[in-house]
Amino acid sequence: VRIAILGTGVVGRTLAGGLEAAGHDIAVGTRDPRATLARTDTGPMGTPPYAVWQEEHPDVALLPYPDAAAHGDVVVLATAGDGALGAVELAGREDLAGKVLVDVTNPLDFSGGFPPTLTVCNTDSLAEQIQRAVPDAKVVKALNTVSASVMVQPGSVADGDHSIFVSGDDADAKATVTSLLRELGWRDVIDLGALNTARGPEMYLPVWLRLMGALGTPAFNVKVVR
Amino acid sequence: VRIAILGTGVVGRTLAGGLEAAGHDIAVGTRDPRATLARTDTGPMGTPPYAVWQEEHPDVALLPYPDAAAHGDVVVLATAGDGALGAVELAGREDLAGKVLVDVTNPLDFSGGFPPTLTVCNTDSLAEQIQRAVPDAKVVKALNTVSASVMVQPGSVADGDHSIFVSGDDADAKATVTSLLRELGWRDVIDLGALNTARGPEMYLPVWLRLMGALGTPAFNVKVVR
Repeated sequence: VRIAILGTGVVGRTLAGGLEAAGHDIAVGTRDPRATLARTDTGPMGTPPYAVWQEEHPDVALLPYPDAAAHGDVVVLATAGDGALGAVELAGREDLAGKVLVDVTNPLDFSGGFPPTLTVCNTDSLAEQIQRAVPDAKVVKALNTVSASVMVQPGSVADGDHSIFVSGDDADAKATVTSLLRELGWRDVIDLGALNTARGPEMYLPVWLRLMGALGTPAFNVKVVR
Repeated sequence: VRIAILGTGVVGRTLAGGLEAAGHDIAVGTRDPRATLARTDTGPMGTPPYAVWQEEHPDVALLPYPDAAAHGDVVVLATAGDGALGAVELAGREDLAGKVLVDVTNPLDFSGGFPPTLTVCNTDSLAEQIQRAVPDAKVVKALNTVSASVMVQPGSVADGDHSIFVSGDDADAKATVTSLLRELGWRDVIDLGALNTARGPEMYLPVWLRLMGALGTPAFNVKVVR
């Protein structure tokens, strides 16, 4: 599958690498590829510059957002939460029209320190805001409930015996995303329903953040037992 | 342990019955015991009148909120979310002073239909509102993330192999609650930290509600795998 990843941070890179390893044709989108590749600073969590990752992944093209979106049959929105709507606007309605748009972002607000609060919740969600910004795309919320490494290597935690959620209004789009999730090793994919059910997994983040604190690691997830 | 349960609905009754069966000395609190016992109507979910339950549990005294609170060394707040602060006010600061106050409520707002939204979230929680209302009580948030029957019979789902959270500012109070949870069969009790971490499990409710819809049953929970 031709897949575009919007976002060059840890989540974007991890998804790009994981989906490339699964045999897909990946392009990464950013605002300004030259500027992204010119950066030499290490990120706040020790993340190397993108150019280092690019050297290790020579077959992954780094493109401006609209070109990346045009490349993908599936487009994965993997920016920080506060960059999500901007990235979608830059990618453009036309290049996203008809595409499966997988939203893995979280609407985190770090302005008050850690743990962050949410910029939207309860009666709306970032996923719904994104869908309203690009009404012709088929938005599917997924993977926002686990850390980047768990997204692409669910087997790294409890042998992959845990759960992931999908929310979306288009059944075919959810089936496409579910198929990609299964390729990555996700065995228990739970369809929560329409896109507005994404309010649930987005509002799960506050307990995820406290669990990360209590457990001392982001390498965990929940298994829905019934 | 002398335990008071504030609330006569399904959650209150189930906790009262489960904790009585575990050997504790239980009183149930309500606004007006005579009025509660005089009711003959069946609840919206088919719940029998309290008088029927009372006949089956003759050793559980039904008392006005302040008398019930005075009975308990541990007081469990098990009303509907919109009745929680009122019940605490009626129980009274004096009778709750120094007590472990276990808050199992959820701040659900059904005014817009199903699924409900939350009356408080993100930068505050019902647990914190309750603590502010009775500053001399030791509030511990717990059990709000599972249905009533799972609260007292965790073994009824996946042989009890799943997780429950506690949040609170008083370490001894959390230890008391954790001990009661273990008696009920909870093996994985995760201490999330201070009482403000209750924002996490309270904001988990929206995904719990969608999971109930997707799974078609409230008899489920999550196991935190790491």
